[in-house]
Amino acid sequence: MKDKLRFCVMGGDLRQIKLAELLAEDGHSVCTYAMEQAVENSQVQNVCTHDRVAGADCVVMPLPVITSDGKLNAPFSDAAYDIGKVLDLLNEKQIICAGLVPAWLHKQAREQGLMIHDYFAREELAVANAVPTAEGVVQIALEELPITVHGARVLVIGFGRTGKLVAHRFASLGARVSVAARKYSDLAWIEAYGYAPEQIGQIDGWLFSYDLVVNTVPARMLTEQRLRELRPDCLCIDIASNPGGIDFEAAASLGVKAIWALSLPGRVAPVTSGKIIRNTIYNILHELGA
Amino acid sequence: MKDKLRFCVMGGDLRQIKLAELLAEDGHSVCTYAMEQAVENSQVQNVCTHDRVAGADCVVMPLPVITSDGKLNAPFSDAAYDIGKVLDLLNEKQIICAGLVPAWLHKQAREQGLMIHDYFAREELAVANAVPTAEGVVQIALEELPITVHGARVLVIGFGRTGKLVAHRFASLGARVSVAARKYSDLAWIEAYGYAPEQIGQIDGWLFSYDLVVNTVPARMLTEQRLRELRPDCLCIDIASNPGGIDFEAAASLGVKAIWALSLPGRVAPVTSGKIIRNTIYNILHELGA
Amino acid sequence: MKDKLRFCVMGGDLRQIKLAELLAEDGHSVCTYAMEQAVENSQVQNVCTHDRVAGADCVVMPLPVITSDGKLNAPFSDAAYDIGKVLDLLNEKQIICAGLVPAWLHKQAREQGLMIHDYFAREELAVANAVPTAEGVVQIALEELPITVHGARVLVIGFGRTGKLVAHRFASLGARVSVAARKYSDLAWIEAYGYAPEQIGQIDGWLFSYDLVVNTVPARMLTEQRLRELRPDCLCIDIASNPGGIDFEAAASLGVKAIWALSLPGRVAPVTSGKIIRNTIYNILHELGA
Amino acid sequence: MKDKLRFCVMGGDLRQIKLAELLAEDGHSVCTYAMEQAVENSQVQNVCTHDRVAGADCVVMPLPVITSDGKLNAPFSDAAYDIGKVLDLLNEKQIICAGLVPAWLHKQAREQGLMIHDYFAREELAVANAVPTAEGVVQIALEELPITVHGARVLVIGFGRTGKLVAHRFASLGARVSVAARKYSDLAWIEAYGYAPEQIGQIDGWLFSYDLVVNTVPARMLTEQRLRELRPDCLCIDIASNPGGIDFEAAASLGVKAIWALSLPGRVAPVTSGKIIRNTIYNILHELGA
Repeated sequence: MKDKLRFCVMGGDLRQIKLAELLAEDGHSVCTYAMEQAVENSQVQNVCTHDRVAGADCVVMPLPVITSDGKLNAPFSDAAYDIGKVLDLLNEKQIICAGLVPAWLHKQAREQGLMIHDYFAREELAVANAVPTAEGVVQIALEELPITVHGARVLVIGFGRTGKLVAHRFASLGARVSVAARKYSDLAWIEAYGYAPEQIGQIDGWLFSYDLVVNTVPARMLTEQRLRELRPDCLCIDIASNPGGIDFEAAASLGVKAIWALSLPGRVAPVTSGKIIRNTIYNILHELGA
Repeated sequence: MKDKLRFCVMGGDLRQIKLAELLAEDGHSVCTYAMEQAVENSQVQNVCTHDRVAGADCVVMPLPVITSDGKLNAPFSDAAYDIGKVLDLLNEKQIICAGLVPAWLHKQAREQGLMIHDYFAREELAVANAVPTAEGVVQIALEELPITVHGARVLVIGFGRTGKLVAHRFASLGARVSVAARKYSDLAWIEAYGYAPEQIGQIDGWLFSYDLVVNTVPARMLTEQRLRELRPDCLCIDIASNPGGIDFEAAASLGVKAIWALSLPGRVAPVTSGKIIRNTIYNILHELGA
Repeated sequence: MKDKLRFCVMGGDLRQIKLAELLAEDGHSVCTYAMEQAVENSQVQNVCTHDRVAGADCVVMPLPVITSDGKLNAPFSDAAYDIGKVLDLLNEKQIICAGLVPAWLHKQAREQGLMIHDYFAREELAVANAVPTAEGVVQIALEELPITVHGARVLVIGFGRTGKLVAHRFASLGARVSVAARKYSDLAWIEAYGYAPEQIGQIDGWLFSYDLVVNTVPARMLTEQRLRELRPDCLCIDIASNPGGIDFEAAASLGVKAIWALSLPGRVAPVTSGKIIRNTIYNILHELGA
Repeated sequence: MKDKLRFCVMGGDLRQIKLAELLAEDGHSVCTYAMEQAVENSQVQNVCTHDRVAGADCVVMPLPVITSDGKLNAPFSDAAYDIGKVLDLLNEKQIICAGLVPAWLHKQAREQGLMIHDYFAREELAVANAVPTAEGVVQIALEELPITVHGARVLVIGFGRTGKLVAHRFASLGARVSVAARKYSDLAWIEAYGYAPEQIGQIDGWLFSYDLVVNTVPARMLTEQRLRELRPDCLCIDIASNPGGIDFEAAASLGVKAIWALSLPGRVAPVTSGKIIRNTIYNILHELGA
């Protein structure tokens, strides 16, 4: 990667602001677009003109890149930006990065000769994001449980990226951690790290013994039947994306406290999240020989 | 300790409610006094008459036992209880326990032939309370810092009970922990546990390098001069009791975020705090051969 | 898996003896073959006849199943067993398990209608074996280093199964652990677990800063050039199988202490290794519906 | 402490050699006395004359300072040094440090106007030495147990300096650690650090459940009666000084493997031990304003 590049940081939330600051601190030339309110409140000063957008070596669009109604995701701007018009500002010589890019947007970009690199699809970002996600889960547990995490009996469902770190953090704080997984090799890992391994198909009948259940599996793991097994003061935290791993309606009617915690990294640690995006962008640039 | 005793639990907050429930679960006979609202909302049913107060083997008064205006501390009661009149209900055959008992109340009790055992003065309760205190500090850090605790540079001032566990918890979560202490042997302990030892007299000049400073020493450690050294986004948490270890006025005028976090155990983990009090009461009873 | 099966445990070292004992403790009927000396010294009593071998539901052959000259690996027997003749004792109704089965032996067995399940090829055994392997590495470090592991600067090369646990164990003991890996996502994991990540291509020039280097990558990582960079009192431990990751000749002539530590699980924790094999055999039986 | 002092390092084992090297690396002028064989094999070159001994600002005698027959402890010298004659070389202007100084030697020195500072009596050295001691215990456990420490059930008797770190290290390696202590506050600490607390008076009847028992209490804790309770494959390690905490005769006749591990720091980590002594000498000099 060259020592000094021209970046255009576009739209997004606190993470993008921090990203712009970090790029500037690293010695790059940085301009921002569609985040004029952020600029007022931060150290990032240089607002882009269309010329400067076009002149950037690398354009970093936000995470997620678009809102639900298909506009550029730009909460720190008063204006609305049609995503098509934003693409019109860009050109094929630029390295364009964005997060959570839908298939139709990739296609639309390709038709204009543009290639969008989705940094959210990269494994190293997903791994790095598991750290703030796990901390967010710990924070919720500390806030909601009337007991200390130390000594609490915690069941983590799933031993993927987030499950691994959630288990690690709770065990570090002195909780008695069980982890439910399906594969024999995952169960061997769970034991090697010192947690109690549970076959995911055999958790029924034992759920009453936990103070906290954290679901990380993107499937309906906590059905009404399982929720009925929980002790009334057991807390459930779900970090699986849509449709979620808990039957929230059943939880409500049973009086089980269930919290669906999505998008934790940007909420609990926007500055760290900005750094994670910066590192991933650098990796992309490095791979492209920029 | 006998298997089955008659307890009267008097006044207090959620911790006393939990205490009453735990004593009942252990098979003891429990009545409550001056917490009639709590009784409505909990499993503790049996409200005391004056006769039952007098008939209890052990009376557990709250923590703190009195309010600032000298009444029994009874937030779950509509009535106000003169502490002198409460003592009149008790007798010299009973084991009377209370928390944070002022000298004048000890004296007044003795004049009536009563002996109050202050469970808050016991070392094992102070140690056990350091766990929820440390968790409360971690919770504040997770809530307030825009970065992850993982990787954060944390300075803990003091290596007493709470300092030890605060350092341990932050290190467990992946923070880079330094601990400032005065005694050579404390510095040796700090190193043995894997934290960076700092002579407390030599922290000046290095304070800019921390993301979080936690003070546990009951003395004005963070003076205006030291606060000036901090980075603007550094968070300060003070758990030292009155008058506190931070110059909060200076912090406010310098724009340093400083949080004075007192009485964390009862606030962050009332159920665990109730258990800690129960265990300590049992120790007192055991020592008295009850 | 059925509650009670007939097992025949054949040949092998202390791990097989322990395996036989554990199977018997679990209520199974166990006979042993080609380990008559072991039987004298242990609680395993029942030596097999050829009839009993043929009557076993499951036959467990040793790890490795054959010696370098193609006989059954049977150090606790005075006799030599041609592997072909051993196969003649078995039949197609039996579940046959063995460790480190060469391709020609699989083929020979299939020609006789036999199917050998190689438990050493299973992921969960490899993961579980990483625990005693990591402990073996820690033991060597404790024995050989004139400094404490606490505070020692350790470089682990590779972040596969063993690398993960070696890093975890050294960090737990207070070492300052760096891990070198190639993939961005591995580097993200290394950071998430709190070790210092190093790009494997960029360790040259920094090797002088370590007290201990542990190689887990099956490639010549520590070349003469890199060994020259090490401090003279740096210890190198290699757990990569043939041809090993260290240029041992160069190490010898440079005076660098280099230890090639192979087959650690069976050596440092034969009883645990026996348990690991037992668990894996059970998984195989479970999958086969036995 | 002044930047550059003249040190004379006298007698002793590898720790003293390392101490001399470290002092020289720190920029001090160092000569050695009564360790001429060490000098041949190490980087420490400058052998003292009597004049240079007398001219040193600080004289560091070994740990222990004398042998059992009252000579200077000087294993790296061919000569024998009467301790009285050694004192004759010193003078009252010098800061004289030594380890494990018997009362009669303190007295003899005072009569000559000399004051000996016993660095072994200092709390910070005892704390720092607990680190190599704990590592030595871990090393023995790794060497002797046929199971992994991970998952092993370990009982630590006593929660003083070494007990604290022994428990910490074993728990870090994944053992299930119980700690037996007497005081309620120690039991609260044991729980706060996540180990299972055991009242020391109530361990009888449960000893059969451990794979490893480590005694740190300088009293006969493991009597014949208690040894009888252990499982036959349980390992006992005793680090209590004379007369030791295990009935070793009974252990031998019962076939219980019992290891008395004394003086671990100098044996398992002589270089670290030299550093610990150096740090303690510096603290003494700092306190004396040297």
